[in-house]
Amino acid sequence: MPQHDSTQATVTQQQVARAVAVAAGREPADLLLRNARIVNVITMETCPGSVAVAGPLIAGAGPAFNDSEAITSVDLEGRALSPGLIDGHLHIESSLVTPAAYAEAVAPRGVTSLIWDPHEIANVSGDAGLQWCIRSASGAPMNIWIGLPSCVPSTTLETAGAVLGVDELARLLDNPAVIGVGELMSYPAVIAGDRATLAKAFLGDRHRKVVDGHCPGITGRALNAYFASGVGSDHESTELEEAREKLRAGAFLMIREGSATRNLAALLPLLTPATADRIGFVTDDRLPTDLLREGGVDDLVRKAITAGVAPELAIRAASWNTARYFGLARRGAVAPGYFADLVVFSDLEGFRALDVYRNGELIARNGVLQTRFDPQSGDADAAASAVMNSVKLPDLTIEHLRTPAPVKESEVRCIQPVANQILTREVRLKPTVRDGSIIADPDRDIARLVCVERHGKHGRIGVGLVTGLGIRRGAIAGTVAHDHHNVLAAGISDHDILTAVRRLGELGGGFVVAADGTVIAELALPIAGLLSQRPLAEVESLMRDVDRAAAGLGVSIPAPFMTLSFLGLPVIPELRLTDHGLVDVCAGAVVPLAVEPS
Amino acid sequence: MPQHDSTQATVTQQQVARAVAVAAGREPADLLLRNARIVNVITMETCPGSVAVAGPLIAGAGPAFNDSEAITSVDLEGRALSPGLIDGHLHIESSLVTPAAYAEAVAPRGVTSLIWDPHEIANVSGDAGLQWCIRSASGAPMNIWIGLPSCVPSTTLETAGAVLGVDELARLLDNPAVIGVGELMSYPAVIAGDRATLAKAFLGDRHRKVVDGHCPGITGRALNAYFASGVGSDHESTELEEAREKLRAGAFLMIREGSATRNLAALLPLLTPATADRIGFVTDDRLPTDLLREGGVDDLVRKAITAGVAPELAIRAASWNTARYFGLARRGAVAPGYFADLVVFSDLEGFRALDVYRNGELIARNGVLQTRFDPQSGDADAAASAVMNSVKLPDLTIEHLRTPAPVKESEVRCIQPVANQILTREVRLKPTVRDGSIIADPDRDIARLVCVERHGKHGRIGVGLVTGLGIRRGAIAGTVAHDHHNVLAAGISDHDILTAVRRLGELGGGFVVAADGTVIAELALPIAGLLSQRPLAEVESLMRDVDRAAAGLGVSIPAPFMTLSFLGLPVIPELRLTDHGLVDVCAGAVVPLAVEPS
Repeated sequence: MPQHDSTQATVTQQQVARAVAVAAGREPADLLLRNARIVNVITMETCPGSVAVAGPLIAGAGPAFNDSEAITSVDLEGRALSPGLIDGHLHIESSLVTPAAYAEAVAPRGVTSLIWDPHEIANVSGDAGLQWCIRSASGAPMNIWIGLPSCVPSTTLETAGAVLGVDELARLLDNPAVIGVGELMSYPAVIAGDRATLAKAFLGDRHRKVVDGHCPGITGRALNAYFASGVGSDHESTELEEAREKLRAGAFLMIREGSATRNLAALLPLLTPATADRIGFVTDDRLPTDLLREGGVDDLVRKAITAGVAPELAIRAASWNTARYFGLARRGAVAPGYFADLVVFSDLEGFRALDVYRNGELIARNGVLQTRFDPQSGDADAAASAVMNSVKLPDLTIEHLRTPAPVKESEVRCIQPVANQILTREVRLKPTVRDGSIIADPDRDIARLVCVERHGKHGRIGVGLVTGLGIRRGAIAGTVAHDHHNVLAAGISDHDILTAVRRLGELGGGFVVAADGTVIAELALPIAGLLSQRPLAEVESLMRDVDRAAAGLGVSIPAPFMTLSFLGLPVIPELRLTDHGLVDVCAGAVVPLAVEPS
Repeated sequence: MPQHDSTQATVTQQQVARAVAVAAGREPADLLLRNARIVNVITMETCPGSVAVAGPLIAGAGPAFNDSEAITSVDLEGRALSPGLIDGHLHIESSLVTPAAYAEAVAPRGVTSLIWDPHEIANVSGDAGLQWCIRSASGAPMNIWIGLPSCVPSTTLETAGAVLGVDELARLLDNPAVIGVGELMSYPAVIAGDRATLAKAFLGDRHRKVVDGHCPGITGRALNAYFASGVGSDHESTELEEAREKLRAGAFLMIREGSATRNLAALLPLLTPATADRIGFVTDDRLPTDLLREGGVDDLVRKAITAGVAPELAIRAASWNTARYFGLARRGAVAPGYFADLVVFSDLEGFRALDVYRNGELIARNGVLQTRFDPQSGDADAAASAVMNSVKLPDLTIEHLRTPAPVKESEVRCIQPVANQILTREVRLKPTVRDGSIIADPDRDIARLVCVERHGKHGRIGVGLVTGLGIRRGAIAGTVAHDHHNVLAAGISDHDILTAVRRLGELGGGFVVAADGTVIAELALPIAGLLSQRPLAEVESLMRDVDRAAAGLGVSIPAPFMTLSFLGLPVIPELRLTDHGLVDVCAGAVVPLAVEPS
């Protein structure tokens, strides 16, 4: 098996020596960017000057270099030059594409680095999946560091594809591509002092790396307990005072602007010079359509500037601050000895990238990637099998889906998603029954909901009901189902559910729409059942096709496969369906479909 | 040999678990400091609240804790509570006392941590000396981290007791008490691209630790070359614009207020919120008298506040900023999970410590150390021999000191120290000659100057002349002689020089005043010939005695042994004396006493 160098390979002594020689005038620069307005994110000034590049490094920033001292010289004609942006926290899986394809989309926008918490792939493919993530990240045309997913599985009420304990995480932590431990979402367990969870938080102390946090709405003593554990950041704040309290408690505050959760406007008042060094911008989860339309973390920089934040400070929140929090050596500023991750842009108030350099190399110009990369980087090697063919279904028959009507005609629990949120409600209703079985009833907007364990463990099947989708016939199904990523299918016809689920097995995962016993639209996501191998724009287009096909079946909610993907998430109230069955999240337990008469 | 835990032992998982349990209210705090005004150096606010301490850690900072939740509760009655101060760079050797005695003097002032570059001890005792430093630091009642001396020896024009190459440094760098590489003073070699020197700078990249800098007056391209090497800081700025340029180039700017070099007033305008996170306070070199009178890094905090800097920002420059630059985990702020290094003080505008806690333990109250410690910590073990008995003189006779008069009656070079600086001038004069030998001449204020190699290498002797001391009879001699720390003696009578030098051999080092063939005052510095084993106040008193005795011989400069100690420093212009002979610093070469007729 070939050894892959990690993208994040630290600099060599020879490269440093060359940068010193170029700065001192003994050797020519490889590249001279002159007549620039250099955005200094350290002192928050913009000053005229030149930047000399030697190999992957900035040799000099500011002082005069002559054209004759460089192999290539570019006159920036007074354009702005900033460090490449760093996205401090995201799940690439939300983009439905590989790291390389993600980079192809955001690097031309000036995003040269990101921290990836591959929580979804780890839940499907475990340690082998993480190895694939590290390798595929190293092949992408940007710098990608990995934060190790710390909650695999998220609960004991679901069957994930893998279990990652402290020992598994510890073994990976010394890999230079691994930046630390990703968001420790099990904040109740941390606060409750759960030993195994605290051991994960303690990995930061043991390995001198960061442990990212996730503690929505936590305050006071509980917040102190959470951060006392060693967790260093949080990106879940939605309220200004909540975020302020976290800053005061020592957390690095990540301000998130994702697709569903948009917190920038609410939290921006905290980004003042006094706390300018403790705030970083992150995207967390962005759907293909938002990435194409708005971009990645560059979107936050533009929005912050539009909201009145000084450009130097806005850029700093997406570069220097994040680099320092994570301890990224020689990254995040335009300064001598730093990696030449650079963005040229015209309008200091606008941040629209023209030229983008990474490690001294021009990687994008006018929105188009200039560097060659392998979009399926990492797939060819042996370990790719660990993430391919991940949909291992049981032999399913229509009989498996049958749900006997409750005795005594009692009410049943039904899941109702809340519009524009990932919350669900539990509604109770008298089911429609035929031939002794509960059936879907489009006239009452009640669909059948099925969760099939697909990791080849035991093939357990959970069945329930969902209301509010609007579906009138056929079925929709997908293998993106947070966080266990089993198959989730919703539909009117059990036959169509079966057709859609079986097609997912053939595709190795994705999204499928079936009607009248036939597949009418599909998006294959063969990598762990989560990612496509196609470019982002193609995936976005196919996603619109399956959404349109679902709408043709009557589905009336805007992003039905996203809604579906959260119906199985047993950590957010109220009612969910996993392969264990219906989960009452507040009670933290599996509950029967039928409500027991009290 | 007993294994010493380093002071800096990282926290244990059990301690973290207990802090979490205390914050969450499951276990009582060991200590509750309530009714405090908490100085939050992260957000630069002072807010009322309580601090709960569990073992060495802060469990909670800010939220309410009840008295019943703590084993011990202290009502601070609205007094201020800040993090313990951190001195980012100093040479304990300048205090002439051990780390424990240094701590005894400054810990009651609120200084709970420091970064020690034991450059002087390393020049005498090398690797074994550094091992002693690490051990003796671990026994001190404060947190002491070591920055490895990177220039041992400083030049090839002197004989030091040891040579520390890249390999020796690399072997020590993974010790948790070692914070990184100390000031890389050989900035000309860095800028010139000297391979061995760049290899030292590269240790920071190799070991993920910092490399401190030292580049007085360097600017422009040369400055870029210096910092491109990987050096991360500088503490040698004397001018505002010089310091601003270093900040812009990415350096962590250490503002120094030592005994001789006082830069705080000049550089303080840079300490604004915009650059508030990139500036740290350091003392570098403080003499016993200044430590007793003004204090350590607490002196800079008071002076900054007096000059109008917000107390939160002044304290931050001596805590949080320095902790972050060095990557000191869980240090430098009053926040949950941080080590309980805390200072109670009454007046936010004054910073005069009342109670001082370190790792959760009360170590000082009202200026007096409360904790027991071994002032000679580290001496008892086997390695102490490496720093004791370090004065290994050749057999000296009066004949060794004789200097034949130059032929042709040519002029000779004479060293003239510049008042209140460590610069010297070369003056040329006709020597006074008797019986064919050059002799001292008190009427012309010309004394004999002798440097004797004392590391037991070869016993080489350099002889020269010095003017400007005012000495009229007898001799003074010492084993503190930057950076090689050979014996330096100045006097009128060769017999008294011999008496003083021989006494240094018996004492194992120190300062001696001799007259009429007798020792009339002495301060023993038996640890590496540099440090006393006595408390700071005693050493300061003895130092005044030897200064007074020197004054009795006519010596008219204020701190004659300090002046003497710099007469052998071959890196600062113009003329110096080492065991190699007279060194023309600008020429970088040994020169003869007699000026060649041109």
